[in-house]
Amino acid sequence: MSVRSKGLDFSEGRLVQVLSNKIASLQILLENSENGQALTQLIKGLYPSEIAYLLQHLEEEQRRKCVLWMKSQFDAEILLFLSPSLRKEVVDLFDISELSRILMHLESDDVLSILRDLDAIHYQKALNDFPPEKSRFFLERLRYPQCTASSLMQSEVLIFPDHWKVIQALEHMRSYHTPRFYDVFVVDDERRFLGSIELSTFVKCQEEDLLSEVMTRSVHAIPMDWRQDEITFMFRLYELISAPVIDKDARIIGVITVDDVMRVIEDKVAEDFMHLGGIHASDFHKTVSKTSLGRLNWLLITVIDAVLTSLVIHFFEKVLHFKQGLIVLMPIAAAMGGNSGIQAATVAIRALATKELNTLNSVRFLWKEVSVSCFNGSLLGVGLGGLAFLWFKDIRVALVLGGAVLFNMLWAGIAGTLFPMIIARLSGDPALSSGPLLTTTTDVFGYGLFLGLSYFIFKF
Amino acid sequence: MSVRSKGLDFSEGRLVQVLSNKIASLQILLENSENGQALTQLIKGLYPSEIAYLLQHLEEEQRRKCVLWMKSQFDAEILLFLSPSLRKEVVDLFDISELSRILMHLESDDVLSILRDLDAIHYQKALNDFPPEKSRFFLERLRYPQCTASSLMQSEVLIFPDHWKVIQALEHMRSYHTPRFYDVFVVDDERRFLGSIELSTFVKCQEEDLLSEVMTRSVHAIPMDWRQDEITFMFRLYELISAPVIDKDARIIGVITVDDVMRVIEDKVAEDFMHLGGIHASDFHKTVSKTSLGRLNWLLITVIDAVLTSLVIHFFEKVLHFKQGLIVLMPIAAAMGGNSGIQAATVAIRALATKELNTLNSVRFLWKEVSVSCFNGSLLGVGLGGLAFLWFKDIRVALVLGGAVLFNMLWAGIAGTLFPMIIARLSGDPALSSGPLLTTTTDVFGYGLFLGLSYFIFKF
Repeated sequence: MSVRSKGLDFSEGRLVQVLSNKIASLQILLENSENGQALTQLIKGLYPSEIAYLLQHLEEEQRRKCVLWMKSQFDAEILLFLSPSLRKEVVDLFDISELSRILMHLESDDVLSILRDLDAIHYQKALNDFPPEKSRFFLERLRYPQCTASSLMQSEVLIFPDHWKVIQALEHMRSYHTPRFYDVFVVDDERRFLGSIELSTFVKCQEEDLLSEVMTRSVHAIPMDWRQDEITFMFRLYELISAPVIDKDARIIGVITVDDVMRVIEDKVAEDFMHLGGIHASDFHKTVSKTSLGRLNWLLITVIDAVLTSLVIHFFEKVLHFKQGLIVLMPIAAAMGGNSGIQAATVAIRALATKELNTLNSVRFLWKEVSVSCFNGSLLGVGLGGLAFLWFKDIRVALVLGGAVLFNMLWAGIAGTLFPMIIARLSGDPALSSGPLLTTTTDVFGYGLFLGLSYFIFKF
Repeated sequence: MSVRSKGLDFSEGRLVQVLSNKIASLQILLENSENGQALTQLIKGLYPSEIAYLLQHLEEEQRRKCVLWMKSQFDAEILLFLSPSLRKEVVDLFDISELSRILMHLESDDVLSILRDLDAIHYQKALNDFPPEKSRFFLERLRYPQCTASSLMQSEVLIFPDHWKVIQALEHMRSYHTPRFYDVFVVDDERRFLGSIELSTFVKCQEEDLLSEVMTRSVHAIPMDWRQDEITFMFRLYELISAPVIDKDARIIGVITVDDVMRVIEDKVAEDFMHLGGIHASDFHKTVSKTSLGRLNWLLITVIDAVLTSLVIHFFEKVLHFKQGLIVLMPIAAAMGGNSGIQAATVAIRALATKELNTLNSVRFLWKEVSVSCFNGSLLGVGLGGLAFLWFKDIRVALVLGGAVLFNMLWAGIAGTLFPMIIARLSGDPALSSGPLLTTTTDVFGYGLFLGLSYFIFKF
């Protein structure tokens, strides 16, 4: 017995398999255009998020075909579940008047997130097709600074005056269509936030209770100019499901819900992840040419790194004749420094993102990383130096390699900690620092230290 | 006018500043032991999550002092907000009977998550202090496989028979204490899941409505053996706030809520991030010695990488006399390959985590990455070869460098895509693959290709 009337049926097997089967049947239906009715039926039986997932797995041509087929009954919610690059691809298949027609049914924050993806001319045109007061509203909202509470919030918010009784609030809820909500917010006569009632507490109240008596006062409201990282921190700290957004006079102007925050948190960690790997944003759905170009900037920095390294080797080439196996051991110090530097930077970037690392404990953290580098640097310096001695039977070679490894790992520990902290202080993205900047310095230092030490030890 | 009766007051300034000020006052109070009363007052006025945040920012000695001070009125919820390593540190300050006493007040899933952190002897002892039926319950739950729905869920769940009326459900809610909930789950007489009602829909129902009439049937329940990644995928796909967990007979045995899922999602991305940076788990709060040892394994792989590279250079050293600036250009191909490989691996790891990459599109993805590598490899190969020609005025040098860069980047693109996919297929963690494994192969290939090409071009 299945309880499902709509959506995928996961009782058929493991999740990924059910989705794969669905994609396969969709692909077959798209191949033969006479299957129109079956296609319509398949799509009608699915949730927007499911359709979005299937669309992501089609090839570009098939996706185009599928969207054009659904066009007349296209649910704008599908757009919300597409990755940004695919969303743009799909939006471009609609002309502006069609687009504003389908957007009409979305909640305000969702409309805004789609409008923001359009270029200026396009969204101006899309807005013209909205009713005037809506159009004015969106224009004003689009002017709010991005990545703040005011751009993340949804304007549809349920608020009730504190002198109302529970029954009055209930009757109001019953008589108006409201989007899903999780907390009841209570305000004074000027719309100023006073307190809130969790819905699971609210249902237990007696009809004659006054809202002002049952509400909790010690609840956090989010000022409209708060940045995303402050909002996510707040939601995590208090395990919030929804929170009111207030203006300078403490008046409620919107609400932020946990699903928005979840997306922000995940996007942020994923972005850091991408930056650490030398990618600006996931290019999974991008074309080959766009992907190639997008990855070039980091590779060009690697070119600079490589050229600088070559210059360092070139500088010493004239004075040093690379005897006694020095040439064989040359890349080691750079590799050790590079990897230990990335380790330190990874911890620093993550701790900055979770707000565990801040000005209060930065000196302690730096000091700890220096100690760690000293410890591991000495250990590996002695180990690798020992290996070199066994190989080349020359204590000077061992000293050169061991010293270069130790000092470069020490530098890597300091730079891996300081670079992200400095960049964060300058309001940059610390995750961008670690890759190119760090690797370049550890490479140049690694070769420089190794060859410089060789010069001094072998020449004198 | 402040609406706050408890917790930090963020109207005083920016979030981080408010927290910093609080940490500073806490530190001052801890310095002087005669401030006992002021300290108690400060702590009493804060939420458990706020106390946890402050504890994370104290030095170990101060933290110990602070926890011992709070011991008699210690709220176990504080433990839930501490990072795992700190949680262990704090738990160790309590003896077992104190621990079971404070754990008594938590919800079942929270008790379990703390018990799981203890070693076998300790949690056995802690369980002995619970009432027998609770102890049996936890023992059984601890046997459920980790990282599945059954270990993530909370057993306290509100369910109502489908023949009940709304008023009956309301009366039941009013007469029993229930933890916060977001959906009302409806079951048949055998406790089998039939459907659910969002709380914001439920409040609008009339008292005489039958639950079976107002519930939504097409709602997803989570089988108890589902893995974390399937659960998070489900929550994202349907923007769920809570979902019932069912056993093999579709009977509801618990509920998973969005806050648990949010933590899982964030932990997973953060874990991938750490692995990409060559760290097993954030060691931000660990001691120098533990941090050093924890980072050694990846550094030891780097040592193997370095030794292999040296052997490659050594192999060619005898036959090649490194003239014409070859020595200067030697590290370039390895660096280019390493970084472009990490780029490809980063995209693959992330796409695997979000289930965007799967068996259906893996060939297409591999093909795209090969094309990207060809494009960027040709571009940079020609560019770097050109630079080498300008520098050394020798077309052979240019050919060696250009060829080595192109072929190594090609290999890096293939390996960066294949390694994570293969490791995921073998049920390993793809993020662990990219760093060491990939870098070692691109280094060895980079030097090998450069020197091998030199040998062929200069010798023949």
